[in-house]
Amino acid sequence: MKLLTYTTQNSEAKLGVLHQDAIIDLETLGFKHNLTFPKTMLDLIDAGFDEVKRIENTIKESSENVIASSSIPINEATLLAPIPRPRKNIIGIGLNYTEHVAESARTLDTDKALPQKPVIFSKPPTTVTATKTDILHNENLTQQLDWEVELAVVIGKKGKYVTKENAMDHVFGYTVINDISARDCRRAGQWIVSKGQDTFAPMGPVLVTKDEIEDPHNLNLSLKLNGVEKQNSNTKFMLFRIEDLIQDLSEVFTLEAGDIIATGTPAGVGAGREPQEWMWDGDVVEATVEKIGTLTNRVKKIDRP
Amino acid sequence: MKLLTYTTQNSEAKLGVLHQDAIIDLETLGFKHNLTFPKTMLDLIDAGFDEVKRIENTIKESSENVIASSSIPINEATLLAPIPRPRKNIIGIGLNYTEHVAESARTLDTDKALPQKPVIFSKPPTTVTATKTDILHNENLTQQLDWEVELAVVIGKKGKYVTKENAMDHVFGYTVINDISARDCRRAGQWIVSKGQDTFAPMGPVLVTKDEIEDPHNLNLSLKLNGVEKQNSNTKFMLFRIEDLIQDLSEVFTLEAGDIIATGTPAGVGAGREPQEWMWDGDVVEATVEKIGTLTNRVKKIDRP
Repeated sequence: MKLLTYTTQNSEAKLGVLHQDAIIDLETLGFKHNLTFPKTMLDLIDAGFDEVKRIENTIKESSENVIASSSIPINEATLLAPIPRPRKNIIGIGLNYTEHVAESARTLDTDKALPQKPVIFSKPPTTVTATKTDILHNENLTQQLDWEVELAVVIGKKGKYVTKENAMDHVFGYTVINDISARDCRRAGQWIVSKGQDTFAPMGPVLVTKDEIEDPHNLNLSLKLNGVEKQNSNTKFMLFRIEDLIQDLSEVFTLEAGDIIATGTPAGVGAGREPQEWMWDGDVVEATVEKIGTLTNRVKKIDRP
Repeated sequence: MKLLTYTTQNSEAKLGVLHQDAIIDLETLGFKHNLTFPKTMLDLIDAGFDEVKRIENTIKESSENVIASSSIPINEATLLAPIPRPRKNIIGIGLNYTEHVAESARTLDTDKALPQKPVIFSKPPTTVTATKTDILHNENLTQQLDWEVELAVVIGKKGKYVTKENAMDHVFGYTVINDISARDCRRAGQWIVSKGQDTFAPMGPVLVTKDEIEDPHNLNLSLKLNGVEKQNSNTKFMLFRIEDLIQDLSEVFTLEAGDIIATGTPAGVGAGREPQEWMWDGDVVEATVEKIGTLTNRVKKIDRP
């Protein structure tokens, strides 16, 4: 199922299902069947896959009429990030594609050697923004605004010391994150100012439940800046696969339902190009992961007050 | 006011006020006055200082009898962290006391020069634990478990581009954090695995509202390990004062009500000693900040399953 969080004119954030070119509003669908579905993505994640199945079955058993009268055309909705407000900082993974390790070592002072364990950082919930919104560029803080398309994994249930064998049981689904990074904002080597500024985590456009993605390690991912392709790779080139990440992360932290892991970016970032390229006011960046969709954002210069 | 979050036998987490040697239960006090007070610390922070004043006035206007019958002796309560579950990762500040910058440069590969801007990192909400709980030591991950006593600032209201002049208006109060750090867990220089493991942010014992602390830049802070003093300094030696931190952080991130800033530790950490000292199973660590209190925790070795 392709799930999304959206608003219509004046509505609160709603949880919907992408169905052909329309969004089925789960509240309306539930009403017609005298059922109550979760109101938010996090509530649905907490409810788990039984609830996902119940929604799927309800849609299957609904007449075309019921579906039509529970739906709105997607172009009448404003999409929010699938999880507009994560419960904690997004867990980011750095240096998780071989060629990106190489380009980073050339230009970003990181090690040439492949990391022996996943490199972890975080992005606060205030970084999250939706497709078709602005990435806010504070030129007072950075002159090196960069892009990073990534597959994001959404955790479905709590786990500590999760084994590789059980790791995929802890996945709820997948979305796309553009891990916006201001390369000149590292402080004592720490990345959080680089990666943590408001709007630096465009996320979406939808969350795809894991049952729809047979192999998350065989998805093309690519990124265009102003229509020109800058990144193009496949998740099969991840150094640490999703199972490895979940095993490792869950030894460090208790993983919780709704946690989001941005699994790292392939080569082709602006910092790694010759000459280096950065994003500026008005640039349009499109981050795509196969079977999930394209996240489109425009860079907007903001002036400090 | 000294606020705390606690449980009694089988109760949910409750919000209370420390009053001499007792805890006034705000729910009971409210009931006696036909008033409703916030149920959690975050609710109170969201409600703001008007609500703090209303609680103070209610206590002032209550008879001894009403106070007594709304209270329990502190030794009958189990204290939780004042904010048991922050809304995002705790914002940590590194290298914020001159002598700690020096000891870190000697032993932790950081720069000798004083930082030009605050050094920021984060600790997930799953790091938070209360006084009198265990710090869990996973010896598979670290053989260098270290302590760091810190003054923590709790933000009271949302702010972006906060000026130094207005910064203190955004403070709700103060608590103590022991910023537990596993020195051998840095990955590509990032500190989150060092500082982000479960139970690595003992917090408490209470949250003191800002009106009770005339000068937060003149508080002694100290730490004992097994009764022996290891750190002893004063918040006047911070490189970046609270106003500076709020100004800088709020340019990077939108600061939000309930955000917690751990403002950095003075010299005397285990990594900086000769020979280096680390914490092990059974060790007891006491972190004290003047006018707030002492946070006491025991280290407990855990075995991976």
